[in-house]
Order: sequence, then C-alpha cells, then structure tokens
Amino acid sequence: MVHVAEAMAIIKRGCEELIVEEDLARKLATGRALRIKLGLDPTAPDLHLGHTVVINKLKHFQDLGHQVQFLIGDFTGMIGDPTGKNQTRPPLSREQIVENARSYRAQMAKILDPGKTQVMFNSEWSDKLGAEGMIRLSARYTLARLLERDDFARRFRSRQPIAMHELLYPLMQGYDSVAMKADVELGGTDQKFNLLVGRELQKDFGQEPQCVLTMPLLEGTDGVEKMSKSLGNYVGIAEPPREIFGKLMRISDELMWRYLELLSFQDMRAIQAKRRAVNEGANPRDVKFDLAREIVERFHGPAAARRAGEEFNARFREGVLPKDMPELSLSAPEGGVAIAQLLKQAGLAPSSSEANRVIEQGGVKVDGAKVSDRGMRLARGRSFVIQVGKRKLARVTLR
Amino acid sequence: MVHVAEAMAIIKRGCEELIVEEDLARKLATGRALRIKLGLDPTAPDLHLGHTVVINKLKHFQDLGHQVQFLIGDFTGMIGDPTGKNQTRPPLSREQIVENARSYRAQMAKILDPGKTQVMFNSEWSDKLGAEGMIRLSARYTLARLLERDDFARRFRSRQPIAMHELLYPLMQGYDSVAMKADVELGGTDQKFNLLVGRELQKDFGQEPQCVLTMPLLEGTDGVEKMSKSLGNYVGIAEPPREIFGKLMRISDELMWRYLELLSFQDMRAIQAKRRAVNEGANPRDVKFDLAREIVERFHGPAAARRAGEEFNARFREGVLPKDMPELSLSAPEGGVAIAQLLKQAGLAPSSSEANRVIEQGGVKVDGAKVSDRGMRLARGRSFVIQVGKRKLARVTLR
Repeated sequence: MVHVAEAMAIIKRGCEELIVEEDLARKLATGRALRIKLGLDPTAPDLHLGHTVVINKLKHFQDLGHQVQFLIGDFTGMIGDPTGKNQTRPPLSREQIVENARSYRAQMAKILDPGKTQVMFNSEWSDKLGAEGMIRLSARYTLARLLERDDFARRFRSRQPIAMHELLYPLMQGYDSVAMKADVELGGTDQKFNLLVGRELQKDFGQEPQCVLTMPLLEGTDGVEKMSKSLGNYVGIAEPPREIFGKLMRISDELMWRYLELLSFQDMRAIQAKRRAVNEGANPRDVKFDLAREIVERFHGPAAARRAGEEFNARFREGVLPKDMPELSLSAPEGGVAIAQLLKQAGLAPSSSEANRVIEQGGVKVDGAKVSDRGMRLARGRSFVIQVGKRKLARVTLR
Repeated sequence: MVHVAEAMAIIKRGCEELIVEEDLARKLATGRALRIKLGLDPTAPDLHLGHTVVINKLKHFQDLGHQVQFLIGDFTGMIGDPTGKNQTRPPLSREQIVENARSYRAQMAKILDPGKTQVMFNSEWSDKLGAEGMIRLSARYTLARLLERDDFARRFRSRQPIAMHELLYPLMQGYDSVAMKADVELGGTDQKFNLLVGRELQKDFGQEPQCVLTMPLLEGTDGVEKMSKSLGNYVGIAEPPREIFGKLMRISDELMWRYLELLSFQDMRAIQAKRRAVNEGANPRDVKFDLAREIVERFHGPAAARRAGEEFNARFREGVLPKDMPELSLSAPEGGVAIAQLLKQAGLAPSSSEANRVIEQGGVKVDGAKVSDRGMRLARGRSFVIQVGKRKLARVTLR
C-alpha cells in the first residue's frame, strides 16, 4: 500500500479544491478501498481532453486501489427538460441511455481499467423514492441554502425565472451520494455546490460525509477559453492521430506545462525536471512532442503514436518547406487570432471572405496540417508555418 | 333551474372574493352540475361554527344542484411534517385518516345532503405521480411565483428558513384541482394563494381554470379575534344545546348580523327586513333568539332547539333572579374581558386567582349557564347576569 502522504500528493495533483483534506487523509489511512463517485449526464458522449481531466483523476484513485463508480444520471435524463424550453436537453429513451453509457464505458476504457470500474444508474433508487420520498427529501434542505448556488443566486437577483424542478435536481444528485455511500465525489469546479449538497445530505442521513474534490476546467488549445466543442479549441479523443498530434504541437509552451500536469501520467517529479531543463535552454518542442505522443498513444495505441510523430517530423524537420520563406511578426490579442483574419493580416489572402473560401476548399495548411475548421484560432506567443495553395508560404509569429 | 343572476346572488352572499365572477356566471349558464371542491386537512375534526362558514357555502351550491366534493389531503397527511419540527402535524396512519374522514362526513351531514356529497382522497393520484411526476409538476411553476405567497415572502425577507417541501405543498394541492377537474374551489381567505395555484396549473394542463371563492374567517363570540379553540371564543358544533344557545345569546348585536349572514340559512331579504325592524325599535334579542334556535336545530334537531330556547327563557324571562340585584357598568377593551378579571373588577371575587378557583369548582354562572372554561371572555357592548355561588349576584354591563 502506498503511504498516505504519497497518496495525498497524487490525489492533490492539479486539483482545484479538496474538502476536507484531513477527512480524506483519515479515510485513506483506514486502508479500505474508498468509493469514488463521478456523476455523468447521460447525453451522447463525445469526449475531448477537457473531459478527461476528472477521468485521469479517477485513474489516480484506481491505481491507488480504490473503487471507481460512474453514476449515470438516467433518472433526470429520461425526463429531459420538463419545461420543454431547453432544446439541448431532450428526454432520452432507456435504450439511448444504455447505448450512451456503453459508449462512455468504451471511451473511458482508454484510461481506466474497465474491470475495476462500476457503472451505476440513479433511476435504480430515484424511482423508488416516489412522490412521498421526493417530499421527504426536499424537507431536508431549505430554499436559502439552495439559493447559495451561484447561478441560482444570480438568476434570482436579476429576476430571471427559476423553475421549481431546477431546485430539486441538486437534491436528487446529492441523494445519489447517499444511495451510493460515496466516500469521495469528483467534479469540475462548476459542480462544487452540487457535490457539497451530497455531503450535507449524507450527514443528514447519518453517513460519514463524502470528500469533495474539484478539478479545474481545462483551457482549450488557445490557452484562454475553457476547452469546448463550440469554441473550436478542443482536442477530441476520437479524432485521428495526426489531428491530435498536430493540435497538441501547436499549443503555447506555457499551456504545455498545464496540459502535462492535468493530462499526462508522467510523474510530477519528471515533469518538474523537464521544466528546469527548458529553463536552462532545452527545446520545449521536445517536451511537447513527448506529450503529444503520450496522448495519441492513450487513445490510439503505441503504433499510431509512433507514426503520428514520424509524420509530424517528416513534414517539419526534414525540410519539405523552403528555407527562404518570408517571416512575419504580428501582434495578437490574448485570445489569439482566427485563421481567416491571420491570412488577411499576413497578406496571404486579399480579404477574410476570400480567406474563408480558400479554407473551405481545403487550400490552407497550418504547420503542414490542412485546416478544416474556419473557427480555428492560432495562439499568441507561438510561430506557425502557414501555407495557402501551393505557392504562398510564410512563417508567422504571433506576439 | 334557478336563474343565473339569482344563483350568483346566493353564491356571493358573505363571500370575501370571487375570481373570476364572469367565468363563474358563464359556467353557471351552461346548466351542468359544477364540481365544487373543498380541501380538508385529514387531522382529527372537531368543528366549530367558524369551520361551517365554507360548508354553508357548499350547501348553497348543493341546493343549486351542483356536485360537492370534499378532498381529504391524506397524501401529505400521512407524511406529516417531514422535518419533525412541527409537533402539531404528526404523521397519520391510513386508519386514522379514514376514521377522521368518516367523522367529518358525519359532522357535515348536519348541513349537507350526504347522498350528494363526494369524499375523495388525494393519495389516489398523488402517489401515482412518483418521483418523476413530482419533478414534472415542479417544472410548471417558478420559485418567484411561489414566493408571492404572503407567508413565504415574509419568511424569506426575514431570513427564516423555508424547507423545500413547503414549496411543493401548494403545487400538490393545485394538482388536486387538476386531477378533480374542479370548476370551483372554496376556501378561507388564508387559502387564496393555494387556490390560485390550482387555477394556474389547470390552465397549464389545458383545462378550463377553476373559479376561486374565498370566505371570510368568522369572528369568535368576542367579535374581535377569529373563532378558534385556543382563544376560547368558539362555539363547537358538538357542544350541548344549552351551551350553543347560551353562547349565541351572549354575542353582541353587531356580531349577530354577521353571524346571520354567514351562519344562517335564512333568506338575505328576510334578514334585511329584521335589520330594518331593529333599527326602528324592535328587540334584537328576539332576532338573536331565532338565530340560536336555528343553529341548535341544525346540530341537535328541532326538539332540542325548542327545549334550549324554553330553558333560556325560563332562566331569564320568568324571573328566577331577584329584581333588586346590583347593576354595574365597567369599561372593557375591544376584545372583551376574561371572566376571572370581570369577577374581580365587579367585586364578586377578591382576586383573579380566587375567581379562577371558584370557576373550577363550578360556582360561577353567566346568564344562568355554568362557566366551565376559565378562558371565557365576555364581549364589550352587552350586559350579563353574573352569579357567584348562591348569593352573590350582579348585572354587569361592559361598555
């Protein structure tokens, strides 16, 4: 068994907040396998690296010998948004949910040991509550305490409507922890309030309260906004190896250290040694290369990772690009620059609309990879080789 | 069939508020039997005249050919107060509730035709809602609208806790109206908010919304506070004939007109004629005598009512009391004077505690009726013959 202090260091790596540290140390010291809960929406899963931050943390717990339990929120998932106003939350059928859970499980098997990972469905105990159980559960929490949640408080103050069922959802979610007798619950920082409700309800039901561990929301490849599909700054875990590799090679050097802490399974001591080496002159590109290899290997296996690395090198190291291409330095805002905007500023396209037209025809490459997304943004603080058509080429540095 | 305008006049007699009058007129004009809902707590019923005000209104509807439906709130009754803080709302068993409902029915049979009165239990449809139905129901109402209820708003402002289940109860009650397809719901003025929730939910479920008819809370025999057992200013419908008769003969002349409107089934035109007669010099005592007879007859039958009237007359008219007893006039606060206080002020007892001792021994009579309740209050604006033991006597006027 790993020593408690060592286990604590692994668990706290990259975490935003741990409530309450002493409690977790005490639970770890008992030596029993703790129940580690992660709640999941049962909507169709299409995971990107941002989602894997908490899953990586589960992996830490699993490697330490604890019991990982995924909780699929199928009970509320089958209800959807009962007001019918939220189009993005349609009610799901039992079949869809089972299918989505299976897909989750398959995607997570890239990180976790599926044989040691439990998947649970909260309809099992939520249905049993009945109307009476819902009332008894609601009696355990006051309105004032639910209104402490940031978004409720804000909407209440600004007189935006809060439908009553929205106030019940945190209670249902908290009750999951009671039913599961969770020892630790993980979530993003945006989940902190709900995780604490679980803690309170467990106390109320006479259980030892769960520890709450929140992980930060991962920044996207632009290094600014949180990673999100709609912002176009994501790395999907199902993307082809060369896409993942290329996207990771394009992140800023600063973001690289963040990704190493939250996405890599390299030992923190090894990462710190690399950081020292870079500070003393080593090439950060090599550190980034290892990270890209590790991540591609995780989702596509070692052979694909090796190939992606070789291809990347072939494109950039082994000189398919002319040595005498123009070098440009452009100032960029904190959030980076959209690709079409950059083409125009660099004189590689006469206008943004013309730039977009060429992108759509597949005529633009960044660092040798074809640009398929008009929303792509290039990060400040890095250099890129931009290619438009066969002849226009430039190395652009965004400062 | 009674003409709509005539029916409206009967329905509006004594009522506090009718929402919406035009809607009710339209429903009446269809000629069909309307479903008239009255919700009841399933706690042990021990009715006083205050409770009968709404039941009398049901009687009006019943006489007009409509369908009276009592709704026993057994669903929440069996839950009681789930926080366990409210000692006055213990959870009730199914047997207790059925027994209480039977007792209600028996007491109400004094006023309503039991053959035309339906008794329903809301567990029938509330249980079926399940946890999912509770969430769907809550989705139909916003927090802001529930906080419009006076007592919620007050408690929220003053930061007193509101347990979440308390917010669900008005929704459950409103859902009863949906399940019953109620056309009209009756209640005390304190119920107005809850009745309106029913109206809103019915609209939301695509039903024609119920009309809401609130009746005032009846003043107790002191003419000031609302009638209540704990204030001692009540007339219980199960009290012996002479008690009811005596209590009603002791109310003020002003309160008499109020009681006639809300408690008597005498035609309003006849009551107005009596009022004119009293204004022109007729003895209000005779009007009160008729009222007392009517009420005693309702709960104990005509023979008992006749006897109670005769006994009352025997004690006061036919001179068992000395002609030369002392007459006193005392000033009294608006709420009247407690009996022990009055004995002391009138010099009939040396102290309040001595007065209470004599009352407990059964040695005190007011207008010839033995005082059994130390909490009894005598109303301002009337005269009473007070007797302590065999020899102490006085006629006391409270001004």
